[in-house]
Amino acid sequence: MKKEFEFINWLRSQKINNPINLIAGIGDDAAIFSSPSNKEILISTDLLSEDIHFKLDFTPPDLLGHKALAVNLSDIAAMGGQANFFLLSIARPKTLPDSFLTELLRGMLELADTYQVTLIGGDTSASVDKLFLNITILGDSFLGKAVKRSGAKVGDEIYITGQLGASALGLELLLQGKRITNNDLTDIEKQALLAHLKPQPRLEFGKTLAIENLASSMIDISDGLSSDLGHICEESGVGATVSLSSLPVFPSATINQALNGGEDYELLFTIPSENNTKLNILSKLFPDLSITKIGIITSDLDRWLIDGKRKTPLLAKGYDHFA
Amino acid sequence: MKKEFEFINWLRSQKINNPINLIAGIGDDAAIFSSPSNKEILISTDLLSEDIHFKLDFTPPDLLGHKALAVNLSDIAAMGGQANFFLLSIARPKTLPDSFLTELLRGMLELADTYQVTLIGGDTSASVDKLFLNITILGDSFLGKAVKRSGAKVGDEIYITGQLGASALGLELLLQGKRITNNDLTDIEKQALLAHLKPQPRLEFGKTLAIENLASSMIDISDGLSSDLGHICEESGVGATVSLSSLPVFPSATINQALNGGEDYELLFTIPSENNTKLNILSKLFPDLSITKIGIITSDLDRWLIDGKRKTPLLAKGYDHFA
Repeated sequence: MKKEFEFINWLRSQKINNPINLIAGIGDDAAIFSSPSNKEILISTDLLSEDIHFKLDFTPPDLLGHKALAVNLSDIAAMGGQANFFLLSIARPKTLPDSFLTELLRGMLELADTYQVTLIGGDTSASVDKLFLNITILGDSFLGKAVKRSGAKVGDEIYITGQLGASALGLELLLQGKRITNNDLTDIEKQALLAHLKPQPRLEFGKTLAIENLASSMIDISDGLSSDLGHICEESGVGATVSLSSLPVFPSATINQALNGGEDYELLFTIPSENNTKLNILSKLFPDLSITKIGIITSDLDRWLIDGKRKTPLLAKGYDHFA
Repeated sequence: MKKEFEFINWLRSQKINNPINLIAGIGDDAAIFSSPSNKEILISTDLLSEDIHFKLDFTPPDLLGHKALAVNLSDIAAMGGQANFFLLSIARPKTLPDSFLTELLRGMLELADTYQVTLIGGDTSASVDKLFLNITILGDSFLGKAVKRSGAKVGDEIYITGQLGASALGLELLLQGKRITNNDLTDIEKQALLAHLKPQPRLEFGKTLAIENLASSMIDISDGLSSDLGHICEESGVGATVSLSSLPVFPSATINQALNGGEDYELLFTIPSENNTKLNILSKLFPDLSITKIGIITSDLDRWLIDGKRKTPLLAKGYDHFA
């Protein structure tokens, strides 16, 4: 098995993306960077725990590496920020071969190259039997431009990027035994599996929304629309109604998967209705990304799902790790 | 069992230390902070893995919380920085009771208060069977003042704070069945157990060294003197000789524990010999902290231990997590 210091030296030899504000990366007790005076710094962290967030038997290592970084990049996207640096902690079971780790890092560093983010530190440890990955992501945004969850106002329109439920459908297919390596997958199956295994952070779109001052609040769909809209409403002190017929449900996904499945990593955001035209123009810059109006922010503090003439409570059904 | 959101809300209700540059803490996709233009930002991360770094049967939960943060603060101390914020990721086995978690956080937040650092984010997850804690620490230092591992020069004097080997002795006592809660511990045993279970980061001393421009390089003793001096020498492209008789070995600890035991979290640093007098004056500001000259930086690239007329190679014997 490769020695820990060889592994760290290999990581240290990787290309440095976006070096402008990096003063010292891997190799000291702490990494050092500077921040331009017109920027504020964004930081977030996400843990992936084996047999809770992923199973080794259906997760190719390169895609696991991609996903661990992607879910963190998605948090920066949800603030409308620019991602810059990340730190990686790995607790590695002795049974995990070098080749798995190398592939995992290849997938992670490939995504890092795509978004020009640099690995600047981390920690390596043994683990008794399960693999744990923790990434801390650093980004920035212009002063006062970060889009929080707490800015939604009564009357704001609610939008979502992409489609909902694909990741939950992909997980269902994996649990049924389908694998991304199978040759007999339909296009829909393949898309669903990739939505779950290889989510794409919406960094460019989120950043553009923030720079153009269009969004009043934003979050990424990690827990599921019902829960994540709940977070926006609670932080903003408002309610919402969502129109079922307008939901961009992924083909073959169920309404339940679209509402509560989570891990879609799409952006859910609100805009004052007067920004409607600007959003329409901006969306033309992202021809491959659908942007759908799904509802409106209300004053009554509850969340409702409207289905024709039926109105049902939209209850948060996100996963509780401590339940 | 307490719900995940209740746990997060409880954390969110904690006192905010050092709020000056904090724009948004827990409660959004990312935390937001600003950095004064005369500062650079320091960031580091440390993972604690159950049955690798600690065992639940001999680690009181409040001390585990203390230690998880202390080892991170020590990394900022080793750069000569000021610690400001931290993020905490927990992967929690279902068998771990609420009371353990509450005590763990109490110990952690008590230390956070001591050094005026604030918890600004994190992640919570289930774990199949082991507890994992990952902390990311953020600090800062004045531009260009951070003390790196790479600045040691030939002729520089090598110093260490405190004593060496206490933590390794403490671990040995724990493995022999001694517990910090026992009533029949000798003073030495109690000190050794506390050195292992409740290490004290040397933040104030490290920061003062940096501000006064005294140290040419610095590191904290996490892997052990032999390994950590090795890191300084490798990064600086120099060698070192250490005098065995001058080593501040903790009473009852062995030479091996002092050289290779690790987890002492003392500061190992080098100074140009002309800073000798200034260091002497500065050390008077820290009457409770011993500061001992243990050797000298050399040009020959090897590390040697001098014992009277005997000269033996000082080989790095740190723990390899991937071995």
